[in-house]
Amino acid sequence: MTILGPGLLGASLGMAARQRGLVQRVRVWARRAEARNACLGSEWCDSVAEDPAEAVRESEIVVLCTPVDRIAPLVERVRSGFAPGALLTDVGSTKARICRETTAVLPAGVHFVGSHPMAGSEKTGMENAREDLFNERACIVTPLAATSGEATARIVHFWEALGMRVTRLSPEEHDRIVAAISHLPHMLASLLCSLLAEKPDRWKALAGTGLLDTTRVAAGSSGLWTSICEHNRDPLLGVLEEFRTLLAEFSSALREEDWKKVAGLLEEARLYRQDLQ
Amino acid sequence: MTILGPGLLGASLGMAARQRGLVQRVRVWARRAEARNACLGSEWCDSVAEDPAEAVRESEIVVLCTPVDRIAPLVERVRSGFAPGALLTDVGSTKARICRETTAVLPAGVHFVGSHPMAGSEKTGMENAREDLFNERACIVTPLAATSGEATARIVHFWEALGMRVTRLSPEEHDRIVAAISHLPHMLASLLCSLLAEKPDRWKALAGTGLLDTTRVAAGSSGLWTSICEHNRDPLLGVLEEFRTLLAEFSSALREEDWKKVAGLLEEARLYRQDLQ
Repeated sequence: MTILGPGLLGASLGMAARQRGLVQRVRVWARRAEARNACLGSEWCDSVAEDPAEAVRESEIVVLCTPVDRIAPLVERVRSGFAPGALLTDVGSTKARICRETTAVLPAGVHFVGSHPMAGSEKTGMENAREDLFNERACIVTPLAATSGEATARIVHFWEALGMRVTRLSPEEHDRIVAAISHLPHMLASLLCSLLAEKPDRWKALAGTGLLDTTRVAAGSSGLWTSICEHNRDPLLGVLEEFRTLLAEFSSALREEDWKKVAGLLEEARLYRQDLQ
Repeated sequence: MTILGPGLLGASLGMAARQRGLVQRVRVWARRAEARNACLGSEWCDSVAEDPAEAVRESEIVVLCTPVDRIAPLVERVRSGFAPGALLTDVGSTKARICRETTAVLPAGVHFVGSHPMAGSEKTGMENAREDLFNERACIVTPLAATSGEATARIVHFWEALGMRVTRLSPEEHDRIVAAISHLPHMLASLLCSLLAEKPDRWKALAGTGLLDTTRVAAGSSGLWTSICEHNRDPLLGVLEEFRTLLAEFSSALREEDWKKVAGLLEEARLYRQDLQ
């Protein structure tokens, strides 16, 4: 297996695959020399390469773990290096554009099946990697209509073997769902932080555990999330508009002292959340 | 010490005060017989009373731990029972209305100083109580202009002795700040859940850790939070409007593909959140 981009997800994947004996050897490419050295010094990595085309040369499975905007360009850059029959996947948070652009530059006989393991953290980087990051979390696998069924089955098996619960969706349906269940929550947390950043500094010392939980994801990299917004702009605009409507409805109920309506919305939310795990 | 209403906060307070040796005896009033029996069976509680006026009779300090809408009515109901010089406080999430209404029904020689320990959880009830709930968390104490300085100092000392970082604010300033740092986050989490509750049920299985964190508080009691909305309506309407404006600004940036603006908002948020603990 080759991991391109050993950040939080890439390094956790290396650890998890090694610990579960899923692969014989783990090879890594990282852009930065420090990251390559850190990988060489870790137990889960067998070898590193400075050149990504060199890194993928002998691998049966290649996992792209770079930011979403660098996945298709990287596949294009290393396309001459892939072994015949190599199986590619990624861990990007958006899928339609990645699957379309990656498939367009794929050499014959090489397969790409998009993946989105719903695991991660506001903490980025290899230093926060954990071999149990994927355990019992959801993973969405997004074959295109033309994707080989066998390649898809192998990718599904790969994530299941890492302890994930796998769902298959089209890339477009993935993006629409994830806009609501992941990108919208992230944007709300970020906008809340952005609002509070304008308030007096001493308010910070008064933060309760609720604020800490609600905003945790906003500590994530702004660069990564700007790329995600760019990839998933239209579905995200759609759910932001839905949220705006609901917010206006709630504010009206509050303004009109319609406590029955306020209680109804809060109770619907409570029942939903109670059921989530 | 008497605790009126041994829910999550009341029972945690009994445990913490007992463990730290802050009080000699802990007496409890609870509306429900099951709750009184559970208290009697716990190590931190010395005695219970069926009648709240009876419960407060010999106590130097009385802590009201009921929902916000029942604090002033309960003080009025038990006013004949307070010991001379008794010191009252509460743990309600709103302060202006509670301080005003409670002070209006206070007998001569009895002191009330409002408190809001910024601790808690989406889990309610005595069964989730923890003796370390208050430890190293913020607490806001809200004396009125006419409140005895000595009474305020004793309440500040009380929370500090429980390991809290105490800030003094006027009840109105408390409500304005808490609308932004606690009630707004709660409403956003609830509205997000309310939006997702209308989506297909199978989306639930795809929830990532980010969604779980962001919405955790929405599992809290809808009744308690409706009362909080009622008490803190005006400050909450104010910050909801601020949020609406920011949301519109963000959606415009996204629609216009102004990635510099999107990145700027996300980065401002990241820096704010990184600094929060």
